[in-house]
Amino acid sequence: MTEPSPPPEELHTRLEQWIRPELRSLAPYHVADASGCIKLDAMENPYPWPGTLTTAWLERLSSVELNRYPDPQGSAVKQALRRHFAIAEHHALLLGNGSDELILLLALLFGGTSHCLLAPEPGFVMYSLIARQAGMAYCGVALTEQFELDRTAMLAAIAERQPAVIFIAQPNNPTGNLFDPATLRAVIEAAPGVVVIDEAYCAFTDTQHLPLLDEFPHLLVMRTLSKIGLAGLRLGLLIGAPALIERLDSLRLPYNINSLTQASACFALEHASLLTEQSQQLRRERSRLFAALQSLPGITPYASEANFILLRVPAGEAPRLQRLLKARHRILIKCLDGGHPLLRDCLRITVGTPAENDALLDALTQLLCEPPSNA
Amino acid sequence: MTEPSPPPEELHTRLEQWIRPELRSLAPYHVADASGCIKLDAMENPYPWPGTLTTAWLERLSSVELNRYPDPQGSAVKQALRRHFAIAEHHALLLGNGSDELILLLALLFGGTSHCLLAPEPGFVMYSLIARQAGMAYCGVALTEQFELDRTAMLAAIAERQPAVIFIAQPNNPTGNLFDPATLRAVIEAAPGVVVIDEAYCAFTDTQHLPLLDEFPHLLVMRTLSKIGLAGLRLGLLIGAPALIERLDSLRLPYNINSLTQASACFALEHASLLTEQSQQLRRERSRLFAALQSLPGITPYASEANFILLRVPAGEAPRLQRLLKARHRILIKCLDGGHPLLRDCLRITVGTPAENDALLDALTQLLCEPPSNA
Repeated sequence: MTEPSPPPEELHTRLEQWIRPELRSLAPYHVADASGCIKLDAMENPYPWPGTLTTAWLERLSSVELNRYPDPQGSAVKQALRRHFAIAEHHALLLGNGSDELILLLALLFGGTSHCLLAPEPGFVMYSLIARQAGMAYCGVALTEQFELDRTAMLAAIAERQPAVIFIAQPNNPTGNLFDPATLRAVIEAAPGVVVIDEAYCAFTDTQHLPLLDEFPHLLVMRTLSKIGLAGLRLGLLIGAPALIERLDSLRLPYNINSLTQASACFALEHASLLTEQSQQLRRERSRLFAALQSLPGITPYASEANFILLRVPAGEAPRLQRLLKARHRILIKCLDGGHPLLRDCLRITVGTPAENDALLDALTQLLCEPPSNA
Repeated sequence: MTEPSPPPEELHTRLEQWIRPELRSLAPYHVADASGCIKLDAMENPYPWPGTLTTAWLERLSSVELNRYPDPQGSAVKQALRRHFAIAEHHALLLGNGSDELILLLALLFGGTSHCLLAPEPGFVMYSLIARQAGMAYCGVALTEQFELDRTAMLAAIAERQPAVIFIAQPNNPTGNLFDPATLRAVIEAAPGVVVIDEAYCAFTDTQHLPLLDEFPHLLVMRTLSKIGLAGLRLGLLIGAPALIERLDSLRLPYNINSLTQASACFALEHASLLTEQSQQLRRERSRLFAALQSLPGITPYASEANFILLRVPAGEAPRLQRLLKARHRILIKCLDGGHPLLRDCLRITVGTPAENDALLDALTQLLCEPPSNA
């Protein structure tokens, strides 16, 4: 959007009168300009497709009828997702325009100002943002210093706030770790409403939670194609009991998944071995990057089961490092310092290609050797 | 979705406890299975692209990086839309995953249970559905028997209900007509909140309302690419004062328009003359279809400025005709009887290709000659 002109006085008064009070101070979500940069800030898979695959994909798209509305059920893509993720027949699927839309549907269905969405923190920022947008209360519960679920605090918050929805990302973003399974189970058992395990990063860990669905009908598992190489398509999915998914489906806007995303996801999942191999490659690179970061002076990387690594840098250095990586080296990473007390002095680096990771390590080494006054 | 199994008792109780009361009875939006049918039910443009254009489009898509998130601002596609719709620099744009998402954003920003969304009826069903989903009150105001805005009733409802948002489709769906400009202006002037003129069908009429934006900063114009041949892409847009659009933008999920839709819309708008020619062709066919319908016994078509025609059929015949058109002739149209008192005995037919329209006219002629008992 171009710069907004100041609102005419009359319009301003009108907006203040009608916009829900809790939404008056919201600002648009900021995304950094990435042109010409090495992008290690957004948890994207850095590998493009080989040319032969692109050719076959375009051939597939040639039969998409752009003049017709998409399949409102997404039947073909659901079938492909079932196969790819080995989803049992007795579990139902809901598709979203990215996981974001699924979070919104949950907040709308279970919302209302007296209802609360609860999530451990630090976590994925969209949980609290979308809860607020949907007019729902939000409750964040701090993790321990080791980024583990705080069992006592979680159970106390659940008992007190009675959350309609609990979101737990596994592996957690931005910390990268998996929580203790017994504590996770205790949280699910204590939840009075529904629990969503957000497995956005499941391609980068061996742990997965689909088996829990059979034990807990109030549990949902959320996944996405964004982290395995298809972020441009915007396709997220919720998996769970048909009775629960059906209620969410009644709120879904009927044509929420466009035709090109449906056709492209079907095609890509037919060639999932490539995506899986790319994820495996990123896991190997994660190990190498982690070891290299450990050897850097003053840097503490945290073990990760995702396609990113959280690291703590010398006190007060995080914003400077993030800024100079961009300004001097055209490398984008995420500075988390200031976002949550537990993330003081923290940066988050997406695992890239070997060359991208090398460039990052070289640049970081250079910047760490400089006295801070050069900033 | 496959048939939902009955909910386990415990889950059922939990859902009843937590789902917002007004959402408990919602059912998923039903879309008819269209395989092998002539589709005259969804206001789609029936014309595909010539092969050379498809080839050039696929060439363009070959450079889309599927592994990267889409441009969150949609800058290129916004520029293309500005050019195509001749949108002034001082008006801002907001993109939606179809108009549906834009309606939802409006309902979320201006919602809350004490706030009301008002629209004339019969109108586009998503206004009331989405208002309800977003937790907003809804007020429908009946049109006159001639499908004209009822000035007295509208002004009285506005005074009494004080709607935060008013939606008015021009041309109106499903009636196809334009309202009296003076009454429309009176409604805009009386509105205490914002007014949205939904110009989904603007390609099929010479009347457009962008000039009104300069008179009324609380007015928004909504458009879509769906009716001009790009329904599969899901791209809607809102146009209006930057101060207003910016507030809505703060609620938009950041990656709501996927990369393929952005690239395809840019491409298609570079070749807009084809789309415009197709819309002109549909306008010519609309005249021919209208005249032919007028000559059918017992049929009253209503003059339309959109790519569909509303018609009234002999009393009690509408459901039978719709059913038999599908069962015997594989032609899908929309039966509106039962939806609103003013639409008693009404059907809605999308204008198709000459061959499709001929097939419809032949089939309708046959069915009208049959005694109803043969149904």
